[in-house]
Amino acid sequence: MPALRSWFSIPRGSHFSLANIPFGIISTPSSKTPRVAVAIGEHVLDLEAFAANNGFSALSIIQPHQAVFSQPSLNAFAALGRPIHAIVRKYIQDVFDADTTYPEILKTNSALQKQALLPLKEIQTYLPFKIGDYTDFFAGLNHAVKAGSMFRGPINALQPNYKHLPVAYHGRASSIVVSGTPIRRPNGQILLDPATEKKQPTYSACKKLDFELELGAFICKANKMGEPVPVNEAQDSLFGIVLMNDWSARDVQAWEYVPLGPFNAKNFGTTISAWVVLADALEPFKVKGIENDVGVLPYLKEKDNKSVYDIQLKVDLQTKSGNSKTIAKTNGRHLLWSYPQMIAHHSSTGCPLQVGDLLGSGTISGISQSEYGSLLEQSENGKIPIKISDSEERIFLEDGDEVTFSGVCGSDEEALVGFGECVGRIEPALKL
Amino acid sequence: MPALRSWFSIPRGSHFSLANIPFGIISTPSSKTPRVAVAIGEHVLDLEAFAANNGFSALSIIQPHQAVFSQPSLNAFAALGRPIHAIVRKYIQDVFDADTTYPEILKTNSALQKQALLPLKEIQTYLPFKIGDYTDFFAGLNHAVKAGSMFRGPINALQPNYKHLPVAYHGRASSIVVSGTPIRRPNGQILLDPATEKKQPTYSACKKLDFELELGAFICKANKMGEPVPVNEAQDSLFGIVLMNDWSARDVQAWEYVPLGPFNAKNFGTTISAWVVLADALEPFKVKGIENDVGVLPYLKEKDNKSVYDIQLKVDLQTKSGNSKTIAKTNGRHLLWSYPQMIAHHSSTGCPLQVGDLLGSGTISGISQSEYGSLLEQSENGKIPIKISDSEERIFLEDGDEVTFSGVCGSDEEALVGFGECVGRIEPALKL
Repeated sequence: MPALRSWFSIPRGSHFSLANIPFGIISTPSSKTPRVAVAIGEHVLDLEAFAANNGFSALSIIQPHQAVFSQPSLNAFAALGRPIHAIVRKYIQDVFDADTTYPEILKTNSALQKQALLPLKEIQTYLPFKIGDYTDFFAGLNHAVKAGSMFRGPINALQPNYKHLPVAYHGRASSIVVSGTPIRRPNGQILLDPATEKKQPTYSACKKLDFELELGAFICKANKMGEPVPVNEAQDSLFGIVLMNDWSARDVQAWEYVPLGPFNAKNFGTTISAWVVLADALEPFKVKGIENDVGVLPYLKEKDNKSVYDIQLKVDLQTKSGNSKTIAKTNGRHLLWSYPQMIAHHSSTGCPLQVGDLLGSGTISGISQSEYGSLLEQSENGKIPIKISDSEERIFLEDGDEVTFSGVCGSDEEALVGFGECVGRIEPALKL
Repeated sequence: MPALRSWFSIPRGSHFSLANIPFGIISTPSSKTPRVAVAIGEHVLDLEAFAANNGFSALSIIQPHQAVFSQPSLNAFAALGRPIHAIVRKYIQDVFDADTTYPEILKTNSALQKQALLPLKEIQTYLPFKIGDYTDFFAGLNHAVKAGSMFRGPINALQPNYKHLPVAYHGRASSIVVSGTPIRRPNGQILLDPATEKKQPTYSACKKLDFELELGAFICKANKMGEPVPVNEAQDSLFGIVLMNDWSARDVQAWEYVPLGPFNAKNFGTTISAWVVLADALEPFKVKGIENDVGVLPYLKEKDNKSVYDIQLKVDLQTKSGNSKTIAKTNGRHLLWSYPQMIAHHSSTGCPLQVGDLLGSGTISGISQSEYGSLLEQSENGKIPIKISDSEERIFLEDGDEVTFSGVCGSDEEALVGFGECVGRIEPALKL
């Protein structure tokens, strides 16, 4: 399919080509109320302003719902359902098309262009959803194998349940922040010398601060309590995807996690990218995930055998002194479980999912050192330093380090479907 | 302290004496919009109607905030802070006092009595808070020892971290329901024969459905991300307490919980009582919890050496055929960690707590069979049947079983501070 051509200037290589149309929440210095926008090239289209100035006048189906674009979150828009998201995206693509059906809407309407097309660099972004519950899965098989091998040896790397169900834990919603928000190094209980017999913890700044490269999916359809979502209907619940950094305090985790799982090791901050790429935009990039060599139970069996996404993922680390390096490259396809399977399993007990819930994929790693989506894996839990420059190396994150995830689908520079960036910089811990 | 006497009829033995004044959310058949009320004897005082009819005319400090009583949750009232909760409670106690300072407000105002004093049996109750995040602790030492012994033997019953930090996991907020809501038995992945070498799970109705007797605390003060709540300031964050049933699918839990903790075993439903007893009302019942024989780290050290509550707790089970029995009696004092310690630990990494967050205590058990707060403990994981009547026994819950928790502080029948009931009945699983 050739790239869509636009009358509007969208630079080659932009993550936000006409093939994308991701949604987010923005404000500007002159209009500080957060509202809905889509990103396009190096601009955003402010959908509140667009709607208020008859931008949707050629799309009668959306007119009764235009108030959703004045909301400070995407929850109300998401709740309209996937058919509406598809219609709105297609309409915006048409409005920007070189041969648009509706030139009067924006192409020849310079007043509205001036009002609603805002440079990306001048806007502020916000958390795209009001997140009710956040669940983090563990669907990256390579990560599970690598991390499991380090702690239990290669034979027992995977727990017996791993290939039968998408393992997950409930996470902390209140500490999810949008890309760019600084992350303070947590203090927490750690064992300074875990090898000693006497398990005497210390309350200290985390010494093994790590990132985890994940995808996050937002839910757009609620199921009632007691009523599971069938795996082959779960695509209807999937609004779209963001990049996610599940910051992790490895030393806190090692001491606290038995027997109820990670808690304080994870709840000090989780960063997501600002622009949610719609499931519809990702449809052309669906691929088969990692083959599951056990026969999954019927409630997890998908008709669609391509249900994860070919997303080229990258992790860059920049130190306080300005050195930087791409320390990992991997791909969204390295998942054993797809989002529909996660949704089906999560709701299989009758657990009610709600619009705005966030589901993390788990850390996504390839199978070699440069493809690992965490420093835990890259440095073998602190044993192998990673060279950043001639003068700097890392085993875990240091204060002032900035971690940037990026992700993009496709190779046609004029039709990329990208996620932009998911960035966080580490601030020093509170003094004790 | 002698019991407060009221001009209003409050039956002896009522959980909702003048010493209590618990808050909740109600509606009536003639006025279906949920709003704030307090329970008093066998009635509630509708605070929306009370406020609208000058009920707070003698309390100027609350007048700018009266809109909080028209909300469908207690979040806005709770956010006013503990000093305001105390003032409002004391004022309502005064209004109902036999020698009230303000007889014209309600005592001699039969029109307002008729409008705002509604029989408990005619109102509907709702979830008292809009719950952002829900965290479940594991602070019941006796439960941890008993459950740990069953799975790992008495020597290794407690994990090395247990006495150093309040172990917890993040729970699922969306499936928390108010007392009286039916609970559907979940379907889930279980091992029908866990002893076999071949770990082949089945998707089946849960066969080991259990209750867990807990207390739940609501948070009334937010801390900013990155800024921990000091343990000796944590009382300010504590709005009040409810009874909580953390329904648990033991067979689902046994298979899924390694390595990330309980997930689907818990997320199908959690029941809380409708009336939140203010921390102020519980103040006279503060007692010392279980002695912690390791020296806790300074960030968990409380000046107050009485910081758990002497609450007499009871579990009744009624079967479908109408047999019923009190199957457990225990006490809120059986906790190793207090709520201020839980709050301090939870926020010690900088995790932001928000108004309306719910913190579960963990299962509260005494040390003998009739004091265990779960069937897992009582039946030794299904080995020892519990006699309900001459014709019925239980190892886990069966369809139609109704579990009722109750809790009360004090012995003066005219001054009880009680929680009412936390009830749920098991409905059959969805057919597969």
